[in-house]
Amino acid sequence: MTAAHLVPLGFRFSATSANLRKDGRIDVALAVADAPCPVAARYTCNIVRAAPVQVAAERTASGRAQAVLANSGCANACTGIPGILATRASTKAIADALGIDESLVIPASTGVIGAPFAAEKVIARASGLAVAATPEGYESFAQAICTTDRWKKVVSRRVGQRSAVLGMAKGAGMIHPELGKFAPIPGTGLHATMLAFLFLDAVVTSAELDAALEIAVADSFNCASVDGDTSTNDTVVVMASGKSGETVDADSLADALRAVCCELAESMVRDGEGSEHLAELRVSGASSNDDAKRVARTVATSLLVKTAMAGKDPNWGRWIGAAGRAGVAFDPTQVEIRVDGISIVKSGMAVGAEAEAEAKVAMHHERYMVELILGNGPGQARYLMTDLGHAYVNVNADYRS
Amino acid sequence: MTAAHLVPLGFRFSATSANLRKDGRIDVALAVADAPCPVAARYTCNIVRAAPVQVAAERTASGRAQAVLANSGCANACTGIPGILATRASTKAIADALGIDESLVIPASTGVIGAPFAAEKVIARASGLAVAATPEGYESFAQAICTTDRWKKVVSRRVGQRSAVLGMAKGAGMIHPELGKFAPIPGTGLHATMLAFLFLDAVVTSAELDAALEIAVADSFNCASVDGDTSTNDTVVVMASGKSGETVDADSLADALRAVCCELAESMVRDGEGSEHLAELRVSGASSNDDAKRVARTVATSLLVKTAMAGKDPNWGRWIGAAGRAGVAFDPTQVEIRVDGISIVKSGMAVGAEAEAEAKVAMHHERYMVELILGNGPGQARYLMTDLGHAYVNVNADYRS
Repeated sequence: MTAAHLVPLGFRFSATSANLRKDGRIDVALAVADAPCPVAARYTCNIVRAAPVQVAAERTASGRAQAVLANSGCANACTGIPGILATRASTKAIADALGIDESLVIPASTGVIGAPFAAEKVIARASGLAVAATPEGYESFAQAICTTDRWKKVVSRRVGQRSAVLGMAKGAGMIHPELGKFAPIPGTGLHATMLAFLFLDAVVTSAELDAALEIAVADSFNCASVDGDTSTNDTVVVMASGKSGETVDADSLADALRAVCCELAESMVRDGEGSEHLAELRVSGASSNDDAKRVARTVATSLLVKTAMAGKDPNWGRWIGAAGRAGVAFDPTQVEIRVDGISIVKSGMAVGAEAEAEAKVAMHHERYMVELILGNGPGQARYLMTDLGHAYVNVNADYRS
Repeated sequence: MTAAHLVPLGFRFSATSANLRKDGRIDVALAVADAPCPVAARYTCNIVRAAPVQVAAERTASGRAQAVLANSGCANACTGIPGILATRASTKAIADALGIDESLVIPASTGVIGAPFAAEKVIARASGLAVAATPEGYESFAQAICTTDRWKKVVSRRVGQRSAVLGMAKGAGMIHPELGKFAPIPGTGLHATMLAFLFLDAVVTSAELDAALEIAVADSFNCASVDGDTSTNDTVVVMASGKSGETVDADSLADALRAVCCELAESMVRDGEGSEHLAELRVSGASSNDDAKRVARTVATSLLVKTAMAGKDPNWGRWIGAAGRAGVAFDPTQVEIRVDGISIVKSGMAVGAEAEAEAKVAMHHERYMVELILGNGPGQARYLMTDLGHAYVNVNADYRS
């Protein structure tokens, strides 16, 4: 049997149901390395941080970890000291079952905010998870972390000559990651619970991992939005077992992590709650990359833009209107807008009904590109966004019920 | 017959159909004073400014005006030099019909962005509008400026002993005003096309009007959001005829304008596209009023908060999550949340299922209050927000079609 993905050496995975979810689906997942590894991580910039985020951030700060314990069904956010204790108790149980130190277990949770975390349910599954872990278990791991996701998200890439990186992630709502090293960035914080876990078998230090992850996250998860709401639980963790025995240079490492993160981010947005279309938004001609990103973020999270996408309507007035309220200086009379290469606005004015009719056809595609050219400046940004239609409302008006 | 509203002396109003709208409804409106008056105005902070906004801002800068020419059916935005010329031509025709100087006519438009403005249609109605204007014509004026509004918005108040202020406004989408004196305020710009016109018969200077309008707008339109999208056309104009012969003090003037603007803003949000509920959000305990407003704005425009409102679900994790991404420092473990007085969160944690069940009942009301108490700081803000359900998608996914 051929493996569906490249699986890095030195890791094992398992998942089971601990009945944290009402529907009985598998909801708790373990990833464990054969030995303590270099680790790097990024967490939500939301100042409301779930208990697992607080505990995980303390632990990954050491640069070493050996296991990830992730669950769906409960975010363990806004749960106070009992939430922290529950996270610690569940990671302690897994650590004991694995015979490793508790500080090497990185927790991550997703689900409804505010509900108490039933640690005892996870503790009861600790030995089973530890025993069941296998190199092939990654598909179950990916399945167990899903919430409103329509499909599980697994991506792998070759690094160097014989090393591999494997990534698993989940969306699909409260998705607008602004992942950082835990310092809130005023005015930039949007997104949802996204969890992503990357496993690598090349020989790298935690500092090298950290540098590569910084680049990968900036170009992927932090340029993607489903609903503009940044979660309390967003977590990205990468561990490197070193078991391929191969060292890789910084560029190759960053390229591989970026490729995996970009594919996971795209899958996450494509699978955004209720979404039918994905648009790749490219903003260029801004004064700076920061300005371009600010415009991109404002357009990508505009309700009027998102509903026009759902209506397959190249209603460019909404795009230019959203760009104009981004707090970025540009000359509206220089703006050009293209949909899949079709210019519908030039010099800030309509090209005409024929061009819009062509663009409308393109907007029926599952994926298309919107280019917003603001002027002649060097600043550019790329952003992944999605539409907002009735399916989104169906998912979100009744989510907790 | 008793007048439905207090009508300030010295103004006449009329409206007619110029066929700018596809549906034949009345779409062009005139307000004219007996003589040139003191005027004050506020315009969208969107850097993409419609032609009428550019022309109006030039003219109101003089502090004097005599007429307002407003239309629905076409925003005349992103229409380049031809758009500016079209606005000038239509105001010239009205000025000629009234026998006044063109610079005294303040234009305002609302409708789809990007479509050319058919000035000739308005010019053809200029004499008719001028002849038909009467003190009682304000209801027609209010009707003609409506777009997706379900009802026309007219409010009046007594000022001093015998003076009156009358206000007419329209919503109902691209509503998130950040009105200013035309200097874009980075990071604060959100909202939609809202137009509001206030007429007063007290004796005041344009400087006094301007100061009172600043207060009135800050406490009303700039604390209200339907969809978070700031329009290219937002305009608020107030004119004072002086015909009551009464001078009023600054506080009375500000109070009257604020009362009228607050009632118009509330009507606008209540009539927000597809909305079924209005929530008055009160944020308190922040470090400063600015911090409180930033949190209020982030919560009020959160998609997850708005869809939870549509689902009548006191899913407070979404509120606290949105507050946490506002870029404002607060201690999440100190947060209290109340819905119509019912505490559902204390010390950043759930109060319990019973409290949430009570809050859910309150969320079925057409109007309710949400209090978000962040801590012990002195900063507070008030914000009007609305829900987002299927009706919103119906209005906005097919708006242009």
